[in-house]
Amino acid sequence: MKKLWDKGYAINKEIDCFTVGNDYELDTILLPYDCRASIAHVKMLAKINILTHTEAKKIEKELERIIVLHKNKKITVKQEDEDCHTTIEKYLIKHLGNLGKKVHTFRSRNDQVLTALRLYYKDEITIIIYLIHSFIESLESVKKKYGRIAFPGFTHTRKAMPSSIALWMDAFIDSMKDNQRLVDVLLDLIDQSPLGTGAGFGFSEKIDRVYTAKLLGFKRVQKNPIYAQISRGKFESSIVHVLTQIMFDLNKLATELILFSMPEFGFVILPREFTTGSSIMPHKQNPDALELIRAYYHDVLAQEFKIKTLTSNLIGGYHRDLQLTKEPTMHGFMITKQCLSISSLIINNLSIDKEKCRAALTQELYTTSDAYALVKKGMSFRDAYQTIGKKYTKG
Amino acid sequence: MKKLWDKGYAINKEIDCFTVGNDYELDTILLPYDCRASIAHVKMLAKINILTHTEAKKIEKELERIIVLHKNKKITVKQEDEDCHTTIEKYLIKHLGNLGKKVHTFRSRNDQVLTALRLYYKDEITIIIYLIHSFIESLESVKKKYGRIAFPGFTHTRKAMPSSIALWMDAFIDSMKDNQRLVDVLLDLIDQSPLGTGAGFGFSEKIDRVYTAKLLGFKRVQKNPIYAQISRGKFESSIVHVLTQIMFDLNKLATELILFSMPEFGFVILPREFTTGSSIMPHKQNPDALELIRAYYHDVLAQEFKIKTLTSNLIGGYHRDLQLTKEPTMHGFMITKQCLSISSLIINNLSIDKEKCRAALTQELYTTSDAYALVKKGMSFRDAYQTIGKKYTKG
Amino acid sequence: MKKLWDKGYAINKEIDCFTVGNDYELDTILLPYDCRASIAHVKMLAKINILTHTEAKKIEKELERIIVLHKNKKITVKQEDEDCHTTIEKYLIKHLGNLGKKVHTFRSRNDQVLTALRLYYKDEITIIIYLIHSFIESLESVKKKYGRIAFPGFTHTRKAMPSSIALWMDAFIDSMKDNQRLVDVLLDLIDQSPLGTGAGFGFSEKIDRVYTAKLLGFKRVQKNPIYAQISRGKFESSIVHVLTQIMFDLNKLATELILFSMPEFGFVILPREFTTGSSIMPHKQNPDALELIRAYYHDVLAQEFKIKTLTSNLIGGYHRDLQLTKEPTMHGFMITKQCLSISSLIINNLSIDKEKCRAALTQELYTTSDAYALVKKGMSFRDAYQTIGKKYTKG
Amino acid sequence: MKKLWDKGYAINKEIDCFTVGNDYELDTILLPYDCRASIAHVKMLAKINILTHTEAKKIEKELERIIVLHKNKKITVKQEDEDCHTTIEKYLIKHLGNLGKKVHTFRSRNDQVLTALRLYYKDEITIIIYLIHSFIESLESVKKKYGRIAFPGFTHTRKAMPSSIALWMDAFIDSMKDNQRLVDVLLDLIDQSPLGTGAGFGFSEKIDRVYTAKLLGFKRVQKNPIYAQISRGKFESSIVHVLTQIMFDLNKLATELILFSMPEFGFVILPREFTTGSSIMPHKQNPDALELIRAYYHDVLAQEFKIKTLTSNLIGGYHRDLQLTKEPTMHGFMITKQCLSISSLIINNLSIDKEKCRAALTQELYTTSDAYALVKKGMSFRDAYQTIGKKYTKG
Repeated sequence: MKKLWDKGYAINKEIDCFTVGNDYELDTILLPYDCRASIAHVKMLAKINILTHTEAKKIEKELERIIVLHKNKKITVKQEDEDCHTTIEKYLIKHLGNLGKKVHTFRSRNDQVLTALRLYYKDEITIIIYLIHSFIESLESVKKKYGRIAFPGFTHTRKAMPSSIALWMDAFIDSMKDNQRLVDVLLDLIDQSPLGTGAGFGFSEKIDRVYTAKLLGFKRVQKNPIYAQISRGKFESSIVHVLTQIMFDLNKLATELILFSMPEFGFVILPREFTTGSSIMPHKQNPDALELIRAYYHDVLAQEFKIKTLTSNLIGGYHRDLQLTKEPTMHGFMITKQCLSISSLIINNLSIDKEKCRAALTQELYTTSDAYALVKKGMSFRDAYQTIGKKYTKG
Repeated sequence: MKKLWDKGYAINKEIDCFTVGNDYELDTILLPYDCRASIAHVKMLAKINILTHTEAKKIEKELERIIVLHKNKKITVKQEDEDCHTTIEKYLIKHLGNLGKKVHTFRSRNDQVLTALRLYYKDEITIIIYLIHSFIESLESVKKKYGRIAFPGFTHTRKAMPSSIALWMDAFIDSMKDNQRLVDVLLDLIDQSPLGTGAGFGFSEKIDRVYTAKLLGFKRVQKNPIYAQISRGKFESSIVHVLTQIMFDLNKLATELILFSMPEFGFVILPREFTTGSSIMPHKQNPDALELIRAYYHDVLAQEFKIKTLTSNLIGGYHRDLQLTKEPTMHGFMITKQCLSISSLIINNLSIDKEKCRAALTQELYTTSDAYALVKKGMSFRDAYQTIGKKYTKG
Repeated sequence: MKKLWDKGYAINKEIDCFTVGNDYELDTILLPYDCRASIAHVKMLAKINILTHTEAKKIEKELERIIVLHKNKKITVKQEDEDCHTTIEKYLIKHLGNLGKKVHTFRSRNDQVLTALRLYYKDEITIIIYLIHSFIESLESVKKKYGRIAFPGFTHTRKAMPSSIALWMDAFIDSMKDNQRLVDVLLDLIDQSPLGTGAGFGFSEKIDRVYTAKLLGFKRVQKNPIYAQISRGKFESSIVHVLTQIMFDLNKLATELILFSMPEFGFVILPREFTTGSSIMPHKQNPDALELIRAYYHDVLAQEFKIKTLTSNLIGGYHRDLQLTKEPTMHGFMITKQCLSISSLIINNLSIDKEKCRAALTQELYTTSDAYALVKKGMSFRDAYQTIGKKYTKG
Repeated sequence: MKKLWDKGYAINKEIDCFTVGNDYELDTILLPYDCRASIAHVKMLAKINILTHTEAKKIEKELERIIVLHKNKKITVKQEDEDCHTTIEKYLIKHLGNLGKKVHTFRSRNDQVLTALRLYYKDEITIIIYLIHSFIESLESVKKKYGRIAFPGFTHTRKAMPSSIALWMDAFIDSMKDNQRLVDVLLDLIDQSPLGTGAGFGFSEKIDRVYTAKLLGFKRVQKNPIYAQISRGKFESSIVHVLTQIMFDLNKLATELILFSMPEFGFVILPREFTTGSSIMPHKQNPDALELIRAYYHDVLAQEFKIKTLTSNLIGGYHRDLQLTKEPTMHGFMITKQCLSISSLIINNLSIDKEKCRAALTQELYTTSDAYALVKKGMSFRDAYQTIGKKYTKG
């Protein structure tokens, strides 16, 4: 057997190579998750008497072994294997003979990959939650150290009203806390077990889906098998949307840090170890890391849109198109994790130039207060506004 | 006073016209929401003694009058007014003289528009919730009427395994219920009052934001004024994302109905009153409404994309760029509401051709069951698969 | 007859209203183009003896009349007409009786709308060419007036090397000239006549497509009728892509003008008549027009995206989905024309602050020259770089 | 020296790793292009007497050696090198000592990478041209073999009028020929030498840019150095746009082949060696390769949008953000090349089922002809349409 669907004739080599693409590399990451799901499946097969308990134990033992091999980087999904499901079934057949051929009873690669991905997503989201927490801590520490320093607030990229480091940091803290809420909901949304939905139309035989869901720690069963297939790509698009919301804040903060650390403003000082240089201009200290954080927002956004468009205008049921939702989601997690970490690192190491902040607090920032002073003396706000306004806008 | 920011010199006419764009038309929709927010603001100004209670009452009365005028389509935002805030303040000044000039004390158009939009969003989301509910009812009624009919399930646009109308309808019911969860979260996310955040840096004076939030029915106060500004565009992107999730399901269902109502399949019958014709081919009965539902998914998606990119790479604080997040969000709501309604209408009126469904249940749909029959006789699944598979794939 | 495809029974009203949408409004713009195409078609029908020359003359006269009515805003496409083709055919039947019913011989609304759109695109592109030309002239005038003034060039939003107003203006002049090349190609690409391709599969009867193409001023005939349909949406995506390239330059220039007109830099002065104010902060002079130009890039980009995704994953032949490619293209033209005009207006009215430019030419801008001075004395460039570099980067 | 911009202190390791990302892997592909550009640069430095001719020869020899090493896969860009420019300069310093340190005189990594990328693009576009040619040949061969076979043409995914294999193939041939025109223009657009534009503001010293452009085979010099920087990302977006136009046709053809090879239609037969199977359903022969071609359209599209958004809202001059335009462009080329090849392969191997095509030519396809028959007998087209139409649309 070359593939799980081998029927005794060879597929065209170029087609084979094209359809597999780089998917086997991504599946190496999913391998242990597929093993975990397979263990639950095997236990269930024993429970409904498709396997004996001895058979189940043997298979479970081999699956545990694959997890260990994977942890030690001694097993990968090979291109000719196509996917992690094949790597696993081949391994089981090699080590258990005919028994290995039984493991695919009452399941399909469709529900297998859905299950493995969902377990993987749950792990990744947990890391994201941790990194959001760390990032908030970094913002809190800047607030604690420099919070009382006043500096100009801008609207339309123009000085507007007085702001402060505390107010600035709190904005991102509050925004990240709302992101946290979105992440929690996301986790709740995807926390439903697709295992047992087969190829998208379930099984006529009675299998115990509640049992496998419980074994795998899912909150509930995703009952309808057609919906399990519809949710491929759809859940991914919600995941990456939430990642873009996190990245949006990082994009904005990076944009502000790039501007405010320009010598022309100088409110923020980036340590020189955090800047890079030019190959030609000896004086340069460039904020490359911040620029990349800014740019990566668009990278994650592009992943969301890829997922959302490639899954459109298609009838239900699995299509190979859906394979291309895997990489953008995994890539989105990787980039968001990196950007959260690097943002925390930068925030932890920047300093605020008190003198530059103070010097920038020029008179026009106080025109609104000036107007309110007139209001207190009895003038209506709109008249006060016009009185002050005329001083500032000569022709 | 021509504009709220009039300082006694004229702005260039072409620039004026360009910056206003069609925004004043959108603001006509927001006018009553801005009045409601202004009433709360005025009550608060009285509470903190900026206005007397008599003054407040007078202003409130006029604001209520504007709401009635709007309901009767007797007031609109004019192009020269620029926005609904100006229309309202001008109206108040016209009818109350100097008192009208006091209403803008301790607020900015920035927090005004945020508040009006948020009240508007809450109303729109409530309608979406209702329409999702109706759509689910429509699916339930098809299930009730035709649920037991079996027909082929497809994967890779190829016959796969037997499915049923009930299984099919349930998929969309479950998916819509998960959309409902997303909508609920969204409503919770945006249910925070931005009123009182001013131009994005708050007020040095003490105003009572908890009081206005309560009057307006917000769950909580969006405390940080800079975050209130960051959330402009960011909340909108989450709103439109959730709309795309709803539209995704409608896109898929429409795609399926277009295919399955082809005479070549014939599982679904659309009444002729629901199809349109060709100008040249007399026989045609085209599923235009379904095609447009399919296409509108991309329209809503483009709105999400627009919001998410135009707000990027900008420092915090209001920018006029943000004005362009208004139309895509309002448009997204309009399209999603229409598509949900029309989808319900179509679902309520389609019928299922039992004979065509039965005739399509050909032998190959049962190969998996055939394999399981061999499994029951003791063969391993993989061997059973290959045994059956060879029959079906001649060279 | 209510619709061209009326067959004696009524379509569901909600479906009717939904499928027409706002398309009839867009079709009012296309009305004269459809008349021009219809005149050519009628002349051809006479040439191949489907109509007598007297009949043709009568129809042409009425079509000319519609063009005049349209110019005087006395005819519009009504919602119940659905599209401009119906408005025209109804008008002809009303005024010419049975003769009017003959005009649709050997054509379909599919090739009619393709032809009308393409004539409209050619007109719009001609306007774009004119506006690019004007914009280049505006840039030239700034160069002429201020070109010799030196000011800092930036990389990574950090001072890099000395630049000049001439160098800056020339960059956009050159970029616009390359845009001009793209526009020329675009015009050439779409300059092929789809008239006579019918519903996408041509006609078995002999019609003279070369003759109509020549009458309408097309460079060539788009021969294959299936390709004519494939090009719907595809040509539009190329059109809007070219518009995004123009908008990209305007986005960049606007971003630079917003930054360089900040008082913190002050290189550029925008006349106060070109700025807008705040409702609350009396001193503000905001660059709203520039901000909107910046934001509109994303609007046009979203239109490209919409066109490119809604046309995907569909088989050939017309689908109602394609109706939704009309508005984004027309909108793209409108916005790009406005932004080119307003950009020219701003460029024509800005001034450069020579003193601020000079003051900003600080020492670090010359480090590369300093390194070259060492190179001239015999040091290798890399050693010279490091020698200079150490002076500027204390820990 | 660790980096070209090394000034004697270490950069933070995490920041270093983050900023480099996977860029060094992409730069391994660009290495020989950078060598070719460096050879031209060195020849020019000799021409203007910065290097002696002996020095230049020595450097050129080493650069040629790197090209050979690269061809034999014996040199790669390492992560600590950051980019190919550093790998090359380090190699030259290692082998030529102080002489190697001179090669960076009068250039910057900014113009180096622009030049290397443009040479690479020219090569890739040449391959694309070849593959389009091959694809057209494949379509021609199907046309030659099966062209006369008639089969139904569809509009709105409904039978419309008779079509033929020849008409179908010709549509894609014509569309590909128009793509070819776009590719030619693209090649012309980017065929301008950025070498010598330095960091984006040129050099005060006289260098001979015409000479290097000629040596490298560029049609002209991209004169303005600021424009050279603006064109980074902008040219890439035009490149990837043209790739999406090619992919659009492949997406459509793949969608049609997936539908028309369904047994329910059966017009097209895919050889079983070109289909893949299911892990659970033994009978399945899935068109995975076609599904992936369909999906890859969206992948390339996402690359275009990533490039177009990440470069927005930024002032001129290089930003590290631009590094992220490299991968999407290179990826776009790779995917488009693969999809063109695989599409040709499939087209070359499919067959047309004449019987199935004939059987599908049912009566309703001829209603337009039937109407024309009535027109010939003197009835107006619209009356003829209604007469025929009523027969086909019972309630």
